[in-house]
Amino acid sequence: MKSFSKLTQGLLGQPMLEILSTVCAMEAAGKKVYRFEIGDSYFDAYPHVIAATKEALDNGHTKYVDSLGIPALREAICDYTERKLGFRPDISQVAIMPANSVIDFVMRCVVDPGDEVIFSDPGFAAYIAVASYLGIKMVKVPVWEKNDFRLNPDDLLPRITAKTRLIIITSPQNPTGSVMTEDEMLRVAEIAKEKDVYLLSDEIYSENIYDCRHYSPAVVDKCRERTIILNGFSKGHSMSGWRLGYAIGPTELIAKMGQMFETVYTCVPPFIQYAGISALNTPQELVQQRISQYKKLRDLMVARLNDIPGITCATPKGAIYVFPNITGTGLTSKEFAKFVLEKAGVAVVPGSCFGEGGEGYVRLCYARSEETIEEACAAMKLALIRQRKVKKPSVSRGIITI
Amino acid sequence: MKSFSKLTQGLLGQPMLEILSTVCAMEAAGKKVYRFEIGDSYFDAYPHVIAATKEALDNGHTKYVDSLGIPALREAICDYTERKLGFRPDISQVAIMPANSVIDFVMRCVVDPGDEVIFSDPGFAAYIAVASYLGIKMVKVPVWEKNDFRLNPDDLLPRITAKTRLIIITSPQNPTGSVMTEDEMLRVAEIAKEKDVYLLSDEIYSENIYDCRHYSPAVVDKCRERTIILNGFSKGHSMSGWRLGYAIGPTELIAKMGQMFETVYTCVPPFIQYAGISALNTPQELVQQRISQYKKLRDLMVARLNDIPGITCATPKGAIYVFPNITGTGLTSKEFAKFVLEKAGVAVVPGSCFGEGGEGYVRLCYARSEETIEEACAAMKLALIRQRKVKKPSVSRGIITI
Repeated sequence: MKSFSKLTQGLLGQPMLEILSTVCAMEAAGKKVYRFEIGDSYFDAYPHVIAATKEALDNGHTKYVDSLGIPALREAICDYTERKLGFRPDISQVAIMPANSVIDFVMRCVVDPGDEVIFSDPGFAAYIAVASYLGIKMVKVPVWEKNDFRLNPDDLLPRITAKTRLIIITSPQNPTGSVMTEDEMLRVAEIAKEKDVYLLSDEIYSENIYDCRHYSPAVVDKCRERTIILNGFSKGHSMSGWRLGYAIGPTELIAKMGQMFETVYTCVPPFIQYAGISALNTPQELVQQRISQYKKLRDLMVARLNDIPGITCATPKGAIYVFPNITGTGLTSKEFAKFVLEKAGVAVVPGSCFGEGGEGYVRLCYARSEETIEEACAAMKLALIRQRKVKKPSVSRGIITI
Repeated sequence: MKSFSKLTQGLLGQPMLEILSTVCAMEAAGKKVYRFEIGDSYFDAYPHVIAATKEALDNGHTKYVDSLGIPALREAICDYTERKLGFRPDISQVAIMPANSVIDFVMRCVVDPGDEVIFSDPGFAAYIAVASYLGIKMVKVPVWEKNDFRLNPDDLLPRITAKTRLIIITSPQNPTGSVMTEDEMLRVAEIAKEKDVYLLSDEIYSENIYDCRHYSPAVVDKCRERTIILNGFSKGHSMSGWRLGYAIGPTELIAKMGQMFETVYTCVPPFIQYAGISALNTPQELVQQRISQYKKLRDLMVARLNDIPGITCATPKGAIYVFPNITGTGLTSKEFAKFVLEKAGVAVVPGSCFGEGGEGYVRLCYARSEETIEEACAAMKLALIRQRKVKKPSVSRGIITI
């Protein structure tokens, strides 16, 4: 009688639990671990955002508010969308909730268990986790390094069936950092329209983009018919722990999502919503400055990784990750992650955590200090060369020191 | 093809939407509305709690943390439980999440769609909303004014079937303010054990209690077998907008709930969790002072309501609500709510929003200023007497002024 529900059987939890528990054990034992596994930033939230939060706390913005969010933040998001994408959603199209909840709520509101959702492989682990516990069938579209990990829209077509309810598109992408072109995005929107399915555009990394532009498929239907934009403050504004995000979508769907959010959460704390308004008003110089910093860190990490035998790393155009190819080491992605953690004290995510297509790669978040990147890459290089020396005893000890 | 999921058909949203939209329209038109409908407090969070939040923000507690919560808060909750209930849960039995999410997550983790959950009628509207959208069958146990709205444990027995997975018990109760006795609580625990079902003890109002003690059925199994305590900071610490609560339950169930929370929400903002630690360390004098203030407001509201023709109001022992019997007015609870809103500018919740058993009653949250209570009750009295005058034209105009 007293067992768990069927749904719990699909709960995956953290896909890299094994790595994480080793990390924790090592840290508890006082060992230094270079942590590149979490998609979190070395940067803090902007001081003006912290100040706005404190001010909201002082002003008593600490009570229940509308489950769809405070009007001032929803309007600010309408402004931002108009500025960035060229169309202005109606305020009734905007719901404030954590970005992760948007994934869960969109799937629950438009996909029945047993029906199908399409997304890329490798793809964000949360799509896998949510679809898994909801009993939704995942249909994967492989993306390839040779195409810079960009999803080819025409690869969607043969995978759309009568059971397809939702396509998820992610640009910039996690874990690969790929950024889709305008033509590709328009083609995705066209396909979604033609096949009459919902389209979730995960744009959480839209502010983390380098040397190119962010395009959204939402420009086609202005989020009025089928497109739902997911965005938030965790990545672009280094506010991961604030749990502040939003959805822009068709008014009726947003109303359903709001009802669901009200039922299970009531609302996002209002003082956190005021922080969001402040973040959206960040002076453009500061935004640009931070993007330059990210770019510098990305370039450093790519250079250092390419300097390690057995690793090749392309330069991603967006997000805050590199996704190096580690097949040259002869290790699987899980073996590689275990090896560099144990031998070099570097925590990375095995690419296979993002789907079968991630095998042969690992993900590192480069939003770290230059010093951390330098030290960790040097430690990985040393460990891998030493490992090689074991296999090739002819190499002299002198050569392997770095 | 492009419709919503089946699940959305069960979304109820706010049960008193009609009343709320009238409230908003009246306020937008510049009309003063005395708002007693929301279960939120007139009191602010304690200044030391605000200060602790700001300090945590300054100390950079703004990043992802463990989805089960920061260890310091989980330990503080173990301390608090030991102090209040006499047993100390293991930290692995504690998960930090909003109290509303606890309701949703417990139901989703232990009850399959089509299976049964038992709770009182009238009962908290969120149980109805969650069970409804999840397709869980609700089995109601009537509670009666003549028994001070306390649930009679033996009324549970004939309602337990092979499909019963969960009993929810609420003391102090929402909407009636009833407080169960120690014997009743122990009997509930015994029945849950005998029938081998889960038992969710909603103790969100355990700090809002007057002239009597709070008892928990959790003392029997120490939350190790079947009992899950729901508690939080919204009511006892006037922190409704912070969305901070917790569950204490069997370690394996808490792990499942943690996985689910991680999947759909990641974690509660860490700076909010630090506020929780500060709240739990509130000096006992302050807690007592606030309880005295609540009690004074309760007594005032009960006295003024009993002074209105057609209304009788018992004195509730807990929570922050009164639940007056309005049958003497000849109106249904919905008609009454509509009437006092339109004619007296007073917003209340129709008892029927809490189940059929709530018909004939309305709920008012008395955590308001004395002035608000005085003015609102006077306005209701005037409107009701005037209404009566319309029906009984023999009453002279002079008599009805107050």
